[in-house]
Amino acid sequence: MALHIALDAMGGDRGPEELVSGAVLATRESDLEVSLVGDTVRLGAILASHGASSPRIHLVHASQVVDMDESPFDAIRRKKDSSIMKAFALHKEGSVDAVVSAGNSGATLAAAIKLLGRLEHVSRPGIAGIYPTLKGPVVMMDVGANVDCRPEHLFQFGVMAAAFSQVLFGLDRPRVGLLSIGEEGGKGNILVKKSHELFQQSSLNYIGNVEGRDTFQGDVDVMVCDGFVGNVCLKLSEGLAEAVMGMLGEEIAKSFKAKLGYLLARDAFVSFKKRVDYAEYGGAPLLGIRGNAIVCHGRSNAVAMKNAIRVASEMARNKVNDRILELFSLDHRLVEQDDAPVANAAGAGVTQ
Amino acid sequence: MALHIALDAMGGDRGPEELVSGAVLATRESDLEVSLVGDTVRLGAILASHGASSPRIHLVHASQVVDMDESPFDAIRRKKDSSIMKAFALHKEGSVDAVVSAGNSGATLAAAIKLLGRLEHVSRPGIAGIYPTLKGPVVMMDVGANVDCRPEHLFQFGVMAAAFSQVLFGLDRPRVGLLSIGEEGGKGNILVKKSHELFQQSSLNYIGNVEGRDTFQGDVDVMVCDGFVGNVCLKLSEGLAEAVMGMLGEEIAKSFKAKLGYLLARDAFVSFKKRVDYAEYGGAPLLGIRGNAIVCHGRSNAVAMKNAIRVASEMARNKVNDRILELFSLDHRLVEQDDAPVANAAGAGVTQ
Repeated sequence: MALHIALDAMGGDRGPEELVSGAVLATRESDLEVSLVGDTVRLGAILASHGASSPRIHLVHASQVVDMDESPFDAIRRKKDSSIMKAFALHKEGSVDAVVSAGNSGATLAAAIKLLGRLEHVSRPGIAGIYPTLKGPVVMMDVGANVDCRPEHLFQFGVMAAAFSQVLFGLDRPRVGLLSIGEEGGKGNILVKKSHELFQQSSLNYIGNVEGRDTFQGDVDVMVCDGFVGNVCLKLSEGLAEAVMGMLGEEIAKSFKAKLGYLLARDAFVSFKKRVDYAEYGGAPLLGIRGNAIVCHGRSNAVAMKNAIRVASEMARNKVNDRILELFSLDHRLVEQDDAPVANAAGAGVTQ
Repeated sequence: MALHIALDAMGGDRGPEELVSGAVLATRESDLEVSLVGDTVRLGAILASHGASSPRIHLVHASQVVDMDESPFDAIRRKKDSSIMKAFALHKEGSVDAVVSAGNSGATLAAAIKLLGRLEHVSRPGIAGIYPTLKGPVVMMDVGANVDCRPEHLFQFGVMAAAFSQVLFGLDRPRVGLLSIGEEGGKGNILVKKSHELFQQSSLNYIGNVEGRDTFQGDVDVMVCDGFVGNVCLKLSEGLAEAVMGMLGEEIAKSFKAKLGYLLARDAFVSFKKRVDYAEYGGAPLLGIRGNAIVCHGRSNAVAMKNAIRVASEMARNKVNDRILELFSLDHRLVEQDDAPVANAAGAGVTQ
């Protein structure tokens, strides 16, 4: 049976047009069903303007929208009929297999935890970022949901991201590294040193501390860090990549010869941009909830949304949560269940 | 009177040849005196091979060398006649005005603290990184010396880096930002939230939280963070810049037309590389000690060393420490003197 994805069609910075286009692309390139959740009058009009209405695109009404800068917890408490809450309600009742949102990432996480609940053994669900590297992709977790962490939280991030990497990228034993400031186990802050001890005792393919410069070399498949560090890295990377290209562009613009050279090399620049484009993976998987969800960059275009819908469907098809539970069962003694409220969750605006 | 700089001529990954070349360049382009500290037989031979011996280059013997991966505190305790200890001993006795080292950065900091002591009001001396941006340079502090910090430490970093920015880049009121994961004051981890309150009460030109993506835009002059986050950022930036250029190079190599284009645009690439080259500022100033010091990248070439010697001399000439004390005096009530041992110092290998 075809999988069914709910798309929060009201979130994001570009407005619903881009999101609807992504859904249309996704249904054209696959047999997926997509439910667009939001203002059905507006969404219906956008869909009509696309001409080809598809029997696999459905409209589900939600009367409210969570704004990008709204406090996540206030938002989900006050806006019970928001598109993001409605999308997760569909997931909870079993009408859809996954949720995709380009809206307020904190509210997306908060709504997921509230409506679906946390996966067994997981005290802190989090957000995993997928980075391109010189070789394959690397999964970094957490990239913004949990800013003050304990070692057991970092260990859980490692397990979840490893399971995701296995399922999505087909890696048998993904190499898991702990992001630190020196490769020796004795280097790092208190959190990292204590987490290192947990990882060393685990069944994961733990390769020890890795440094920021290793991120893009492709010699590690999973990088573990707290959500503060991960979110800083995520945004620093975006900013640096933009600045590098901006500075290069300024230098090229200074001479006619260089501009001519750029025109000749243009295809290479286009391939390069495609290679480092966040749109390639569409978004960041939300891991540790009883369900499947992807949060996308607020600026996501239609291609990014299409890819996010594809990744969400793969998470559901390949049962990433079953894999997470399997990995937890191998290290049962290291997993300390705590039920403390997820006080730090959802603060970072990972995708805005 | 001409300033005099001590250069730890045995540290670094490239061997003393490159360091000596840097010193030769520095004395040719300025009236500085430079003392090369290390194995005088070897250094004398290298100097002789340069032909033009200068009366402004002096040799000072040290019988030991601290290795790049040695534990800083062990090293300075055991190797009292190491080149780095000797260089700071010269500074302590007043024979030189500043120290430059491309060796073990942790040991450099530890030696500085041991021999020169901490500046008044400073509980944690640290290392400031200088990044190129689309506009002027930005100073980030701390980039690796102090991995577990309290809010007052971050405040001290802000004061010291602001003074450095005033003195070195001629900024009257450098804009100081706190590196966080959202621009609102309420966002961040516990450390950042508490530090935000301190900065808000200060006389600094505090512009609030800034995000990683702001680093390279040039809209902030000083970015404050703990040494773990700063060191991760430093190494991530290095790794990303290399990966971006590597991926672009791979794409260009795929087609003849693109290669031809690259040749035409080559000057632009060279200017670009010069613009983002760490060698431009030569190294990272060590702030909060009773003296002037620069720690350089272990891979530093002669040009980087020459620039580091220049920046070190500017720190001495413009009395950066007097400026730091002036800024502290404006915010006296916010500066809490603590004399706890600098337990986390010098762990990060900021320049290796």
